[in-house]
Amino acid sequence: MKPSFDLNLYLVTDVPARCTLPLAETVEAAIAGGVSIVQYRSEQPYGGAAYREALPIVEICRKNGVPFIVNDRIDLALALDADGVHIGQRDFPPAIARRILGPDKIIGFSCSNLEEVRATDESLVDYLGLGPAFPTQTKTDAAPAMGLDGLAVCAAATSLPVVAIGGINAANASAVRASGPHIGLAVVSAICAASDPRRAAESLR
Amino acid sequence: MKPSFDLNLYLVTDVPARCTLPLAETVEAAIAGGVSIVQYRSEQPYGGAAYREALPIVEICRKNGVPFIVNDRIDLALALDADGVHIGQRDFPPAIARRILGPDKIIGFSCSNLEEVRATDESLVDYLGLGPAFPTQTKTDAAPAMGLDGLAVCAAATSLPVVAIGGINAANASAVRASGPHIGLAVVSAICAASDPRRAAESLR
Repeated sequence: MKPSFDLNLYLVTDVPARCTLPLAETVEAAIAGGVSIVQYRSEQPYGGAAYREALPIVEICRKNGVPFIVNDRIDLALALDADGVHIGQRDFPPAIARRILGPDKIIGFSCSNLEEVRATDESLVDYLGLGPAFPTQTKTDAAPAMGLDGLAVCAAATSLPVVAIGGINAANASAVRASGPHIGLAVVSAICAASDPRRAAESLR
Repeated sequence: MKPSFDLNLYLVTDVPARCTLPLAETVEAAIAGGVSIVQYRSEQPYGGAAYREALPIVEICRKNGVPFIVNDRIDLALALDADGVHIGQRDFPPAIARRILGPDKIIGFSCSNLEEVRATDESLVDYLGLGPAFPTQTKTDAAPAMGLDGLAVCAAATSLPVVAIGGINAANASAVRASGPHIGLAVVSAICAASDPRRAAESLR
């Protein structure tokens, strides 16, 4: 059965070099601060290193009953028995991802504009990641920022749960939440690079 | 059931920029010249592009009854319903790859020295890739070349079928074959960058 998930506050892990704490401690603190779902996003060039890096994060998520999602690499998700994957427009098509993963895994899909939202087959994916909401330094290959209006338009165009990502922090969090009903916040540096990741999560929550 | 495979002449695809012909034509010509197994090795950063690039190669291999192997990315292998994967020491551990792929897929495993050969659980993988045999420009992260003596020692230390890779060409092919009983040749540029990939395969065969 597909695990239930809550997009309210969605942590996407940054590379260790950009995290204040070690990766596992960052995730543990973020969950203590109210993060409701965790995505492991790695720049590890080799699957073995990514697998070893992610294992303690999986354990922490399991222990806390927080869904664990893997960015992009479906094989890593299978290796870790993750709760799902998050794929972008340039990754495997959602139909392929669903065929590989089966019906019981969560599939998130990134859309950066209204056309991509409208082109999404909602029977294949479980939620949409909308962004970048604002300009972001974390993701070097990101599309142009859609802004609050873009978020509102995209969120209104799908019946799927949505989470906004890209440049979200404590200062703009409430404006983002106000841009659509039940729109979740996905953050990377706002938690990973915070001096106190737990407090950062609490203030975003 | 696991497909049978013949390592006699093993083509590993290079990036299109380093191929004389388009990738699919290179594979078709190489098979016509006697290539017995094909590995798709991509530097595509995105799964979607790799998937689209590999599809015509899969079709050509199927049409010719030649096993199709995917380098590294097990999810791409699953997406393409490849006959197997080839993993390196830095990819997922063989036990994980086998768990994900099940018993009916071919798993090749790269070893670059005797210690790695001896440490390999032969119940988990189907063949070993030994190399680099000679210095190679194709793979930037390759280990030091093992040479003909290293090949002979490593091939003698395993009961698995082996294929040598790295700097193999028409000039050294017979010496490599002579370094062990039933040792196959894996080539990249010797076929992909040849002015006539079919003739290049014939001369290696």
